[in-house]
Amino acid sequence: MPRIDGARVVADLKRLAEFGRYKTGVHRPTYSPQDMQSRHWLADRLAAAGLTSEIDGVGSVIGRAAGSGPHLLLGSHIETQPHAGWLDGALGVIFGLEVARALGRNIDVAAWADEEGHFDNFVGSRSFVGMLSEANIDRARNRYDGTPLRDALQGAGLAGLPRARVDPARYRGYLEAHIEQGDELDTSGKRLGVVTSIVAIYQYRIRFHGVQNHAGTTRMAIRKDAGLALVRLAAAIDRRFPEVAGPRSVWTTGRIALEPGAPSIVPGAAEMLFQFRDADPARLAAMHRALEQLVADANTGPCKVELQTMSQSTPKVMDAAFQDALAAAAEARAPGNWVRMPSGAGHDAQVLAEKMPAGMLFVPSIGGISHHWSEDTREDDIVLGCQVLADAAAAILAS
Amino acid sequence: MPRIDGARVVADLKRLAEFGRYKTGVHRPTYSPQDMQSRHWLADRLAAAGLTSEIDGVGSVIGRAAGSGPHLLLGSHIETQPHAGWLDGALGVIFGLEVARALGRNIDVAAWADEEGHFDNFVGSRSFVGMLSEANIDRARNRYDGTPLRDALQGAGLAGLPRARVDPARYRGYLEAHIEQGDELDTSGKRLGVVTSIVAIYQYRIRFHGVQNHAGTTRMAIRKDAGLALVRLAAAIDRRFPEVAGPRSVWTTGRIALEPGAPSIVPGAAEMLFQFRDADPARLAAMHRALEQLVADANTGPCKVELQTMSQSTPKVMDAAFQDALAAAAEARAPGNWVRMPSGAGHDAQVLAEKMPAGMLFVPSIGGISHHWSEDTREDDIVLGCQVLADAAAAILAS
Repeated sequence: MPRIDGARVVADLKRLAEFGRYKTGVHRPTYSPQDMQSRHWLADRLAAAGLTSEIDGVGSVIGRAAGSGPHLLLGSHIETQPHAGWLDGALGVIFGLEVARALGRNIDVAAWADEEGHFDNFVGSRSFVGMLSEANIDRARNRYDGTPLRDALQGAGLAGLPRARVDPARYRGYLEAHIEQGDELDTSGKRLGVVTSIVAIYQYRIRFHGVQNHAGTTRMAIRKDAGLALVRLAAAIDRRFPEVAGPRSVWTTGRIALEPGAPSIVPGAAEMLFQFRDADPARLAAMHRALEQLVADANTGPCKVELQTMSQSTPKVMDAAFQDALAAAAEARAPGNWVRMPSGAGHDAQVLAEKMPAGMLFVPSIGGISHHWSEDTREDDIVLGCQVLADAAAAILAS
Repeated sequence: MPRIDGARVVADLKRLAEFGRYKTGVHRPTYSPQDMQSRHWLADRLAAAGLTSEIDGVGSVIGRAAGSGPHLLLGSHIETQPHAGWLDGALGVIFGLEVARALGRNIDVAAWADEEGHFDNFVGSRSFVGMLSEANIDRARNRYDGTPLRDALQGAGLAGLPRARVDPARYRGYLEAHIEQGDELDTSGKRLGVVTSIVAIYQYRIRFHGVQNHAGTTRMAIRKDAGLALVRLAAAIDRRFPEVAGPRSVWTTGRIALEPGAPSIVPGAAEMLFQFRDADPARLAAMHRALEQLVADANTGPCKVELQTMSQSTPKVMDAAFQDALAAAAEARAPGNWVRMPSGAGHDAQVLAEKMPAGMLFVPSIGGISHHWSEDTREDDIVLGCQVLADAAAAILAS
């Protein structure tokens, strides 16, 4: 059995957290100076572990082991959300580094660029599996300040470097460790989560078309208030969705805008962004039908309601053999203290799963907090997670 | 009895509508070049009618009649909302000009600057009655582009000009004609509205404090979704207010914002602007109590809800004798075809009413449309309205 060095894992995570430190967390947006420093530091650590390391044309850091035979690819991402936590994706990358050191062979390690979507979704992993075109790169802009991705790559010294591409024949598959980000492990007292699937996201833009009018002179009876139509639909969703949702379903209205948005004007148009997530295709379909029915009901009112489907992904099921390997390792190191669970958040593993078997392992998030500088995980859970990942990797390579 | 020249009234209104013409309406924001051209044109028309005209330090155009004895002040405003109608306040100003011509004496005419609030509420009329300080002017900025009012006055050539101030001893009172802006006259087939009072506006900012979190990993049961708390309160208002409101009450949620407003983030904070209007103080108090109760109920939920009262005006009752003079003139010219009614919109008359008796006369808005370029009134209604205003002014001066 491989033996990881827990103190070294924690020390590496703490060293990495110094790049862009913010309170007890990290502010390290993709391609920022702090982010690029952390990538070069990681490339050096991978080289010191005996891997051939490179930073590719979109900033992904990839370390490749020498030797023949099938390899496992381990990784996650190291940039962070603004003013976010010190672990998040960094945990999975440092776990990969430590497992490569512990096994000493056949482990490649990747830190995929911009999983956090500062410029686009899953830039590094999509590029690696061939799902990110040059046109995608041309179009992408920073979501906060509008900087073109091309300019950011140039500024980070990445322009002109080759983009790494997957050789599927090289790999048995991909393993990713991550903090849970929810509170299921923390609340139940479990120490490890073996991910069964990554949930699908159904995302909608709902537009309401009414008639803009004077809020003082327009009688209630003749109004076509687009904002009120929105409130009524959102409230109807709030009443209806608990009846059609599953125990792990989540649904969220993240943005609402009334137009023109002035206190004395009856809104003539309105818009909301609505999404729901689940791992079960039948449940997703039922929620979609419920939403369509609620919109149809809303359309009998004074305003026209338009349901635009922005995206409907499919749940990404994790490889059964990988799940079993992770579960066996978890049971051996923490008997009865682990659980199988879906991931409510998206991860690079769902992209890699397009090309190879993939598996994921969660460690607990204290209080379920993530994407905030106070995010944290107990040190003994970190060490346990890394050991279980190493055990599972060894078992998969030996099988 | 005075005799107005209906063709001249319509011709003047059409000439005025050429400044900033937009489709069949007008785009003439306060202090824009088109707006200033229209003010100079109006000052010339007032002078041609025998009045001493000036444009004061905030852009109000004021024409004063020669002669002794008590005067009546007639007016409204001539700037417009963006891409708005050709009549709105311009109607009342041109009516004043025509009544001054028809009576030939004791009629002063004013076009109050920025009633439409491009920079501040009722800039011209508040300045005239002494309710606009230099500090108010220093602070005011254009609501669309942030231009300081001081800069706009400088650019319009008004900086350094004296601000006109009311001499209450000069006036019997103030009369203002305006389009109704609602559909009550148009729907009922009445041709004139004698305004009983200008409704009060109660305006609120309601803040919701929750916990921002990941929309994929945060279970529904533990969320503190500020956006959802807002939707629930807005829906509760929608259910409750018809029970406490009067037949003419109106209530409006004009703006909603969720923070941070991203599709995959459970909103940590949210805000809505809510207002209601009525002419009856007891009704206003009942609606305020109902809102407070709904907010108290909302505060039993997972988010903290904070009700901030932004403003609570008082209904401005129009002078009883002026109402009777307008009613008698309306009955004489259009027997049975007029109605007493409150104004749901604010008008300069409510500001002038602080210093002198005030009265208002409405003409119908076709389809109830206002603040839109398609706003319109039938020509015979325009001519009738001007004649009734002249009759009432003559009767008041003779009484």
